[in-house]
Amino acid sequence: MSQNPQVATEPQLSTETEAEALPLSRFFDLIAPKLIQTEGVFHQALESDVPFIQNTGEYIFTGGGKRVRPALLLLASQLLGHDSDEEVTYAAVIELIHTATLIHDDIIDHATLRRGQSSPNHLWGNSRTVLLGDWLYTTAMRMALEHDNIAVIRTLVAATLRMTEGELLSHERLGSIDLTVDEYFDIIERKTAHLFSAAAMLPSLIPEVKPDAGQALSQYGRALGVCYQLTDDLLDFTAQEGELGKPVLSDLKEGKLTLPLILLLSRLDPARLDHIRFVLEDRGFDRVAPEQILELVTSEGTVDEVSEMASRVAREAQTELEFFPSSAAREALQFAPDFVLQRRT
Amino acid sequence: MSQNPQVATEPQLSTETEAEALPLSRFFDLIAPKLIQTEGVFHQALESDVPFIQNTGEYIFTGGGKRVRPALLLLASQLLGHDSDEEVTYAAVIELIHTATLIHDDIIDHATLRRGQSSPNHLWGNSRTVLLGDWLYTTAMRMALEHDNIAVIRTLVAATLRMTEGELLSHERLGSIDLTVDEYFDIIERKTAHLFSAAAMLPSLIPEVKPDAGQALSQYGRALGVCYQLTDDLLDFTAQEGELGKPVLSDLKEGKLTLPLILLLSRLDPARLDHIRFVLEDRGFDRVAPEQILELVTSEGTVDEVSEMASRVAREAQTELEFFPSSAAREALQFAPDFVLQRRT
Repeated sequence: MSQNPQVATEPQLSTETEAEALPLSRFFDLIAPKLIQTEGVFHQALESDVPFIQNTGEYIFTGGGKRVRPALLLLASQLLGHDSDEEVTYAAVIELIHTATLIHDDIIDHATLRRGQSSPNHLWGNSRTVLLGDWLYTTAMRMALEHDNIAVIRTLVAATLRMTEGELLSHERLGSIDLTVDEYFDIIERKTAHLFSAAAMLPSLIPEVKPDAGQALSQYGRALGVCYQLTDDLLDFTAQEGELGKPVLSDLKEGKLTLPLILLLSRLDPARLDHIRFVLEDRGFDRVAPEQILELVTSEGTVDEVSEMASRVAREAQTELEFFPSSAAREALQFAPDFVLQRRT
Repeated sequence: MSQNPQVATEPQLSTETEAEALPLSRFFDLIAPKLIQTEGVFHQALESDVPFIQNTGEYIFTGGGKRVRPALLLLASQLLGHDSDEEVTYAAVIELIHTATLIHDDIIDHATLRRGQSSPNHLWGNSRTVLLGDWLYTTAMRMALEHDNIAVIRTLVAATLRMTEGELLSHERLGSIDLTVDEYFDIIERKTAHLFSAAAMLPSLIPEVKPDAGQALSQYGRALGVCYQLTDDLLDFTAQEGELGKPVLSDLKEGKLTLPLILLLSRLDPARLDHIRFVLEDRGFDRVAPEQILELVTSEGTVDEVSEMASRVAREAQTELEFFPSSAAREALQFAPDFVLQRRT
């Protein structure tokens, strides 16, 4: 077991308490009108005179998504006292970029499902789906350019570049049993945390706000993104199949080592190490049952350790907000990491 | 035969004469130092701390390419009297965007060869090649942003968007025997002419030049791009396998109708129409020999007609240059369409 058994359940306990005190709907209300506007802009962006885009755009739009990044951007915007169309544009832009990434990632992962429905590559084939992703990326840039704010474009391009690199690094190390903790964090920073960071700090670029605000928001977003990815990786071990819409241990099955297993590897004897190796080699549970893997992470306590880490990163995010005077938006942003920690899907 | 038999060989005769009078090397010399600088910037752009990018970047860089678009941009730049690093950056950027497009197109076309060597998708698989293309697109934007010129970014984004749409439209109509002349031109404008147009007019955005210059250069580039694509499509009928590095009639074999065949279709009786239909259906020459198709386009004269059209578009491009006072750069740009008309690869 973990050295600090009391820590294992801490984040859940604390978030449940806070969740009761500060219901999510209250924070949602803060940005509800802006989120609705964002949906409109997002929808409009997917209109095209190219029939394929028009049809698939509708599918993608109605396919949903949690709109986590737009919500983050809009809350940060409110924190800074902005109230214009500009932040709505960027909220839609950031969701478009995220969507483009998912669409290309599904090609790469040969995914057949996305958000509980058929993935675009599964429906329309790789060829058209590559182009659809390209179109979404470029449309995002076209929209972002509407406000003539080159600092925003620079931030978006940098985040997109890091995401692509993160995905490439992750793909390159697929099936490797020797992925280090540093490599893991490098990958999740690039894949997830940079776009969160961009979403949080973009409002500080409309118009000129003191750079310290941007710095604090950027760090907040980065930490929130790391927390988000850590909990996402944890869910692969803790969620039930029905909740996630995908089988548990699917990362490992795809050859992807995440932190609970990376931490575990150094502590295993050769025989038990082989359990992990077999799954990576077979890309499936041919020689080892999922339950055997789950038993290992439970007995060694690494899921709890990663939970604790996610919790620490959540506190880091919250600390960054101390820079700002108290407000409803700040309260909502302060609650966000706790909400991430307790998510079940 | 064509109604105007004398026209059929006209473009070739005229370009050969001009080619003798104005050797290409003379024009190359005009921009040689800038082209060499561009190669350096292009090469540098492909450096990365992601091992896969570093390795593939070298392969892509040494794989060559004719650098048509950078040359066009640098000549237009000289025409306007610019001499700075900015145009060199954009020349590299435009080649990066073009390269990204080719890399994604090869995935879509399931190509195994590119410029006489194995295509990236063939070498490294679709997954990583999708990401490599994304990385190149985004790196191009990152570089273009170096000069804080938002009008340039806007032009590049618009051209990239049109290219993606052109490729999607082309893919959507693959295998269709009812592609119209209008649709054909719509596709080649988007796929090819917009990036040429962007390459030609971008220098007019550094710094502020009179907008008429940009307009004339944009039109020039567009016409040159149409001419380039028309001759490219013609080469599929007229080139020998060895010269192109790919078999003749490969477009048709891939299900892609180009103008010489579109013009032909309305003139064929049902029996001969079936020849085309069979190749589109079979995606190969199972029931009809390539020679039979070539015989049809020769006897109906549509290759000659398209040659003539390309020649007319070349003259349109040249007319746009009358806006500018005489100079060595103008002479070179005036020669470019003729050079395109006589290209054999």
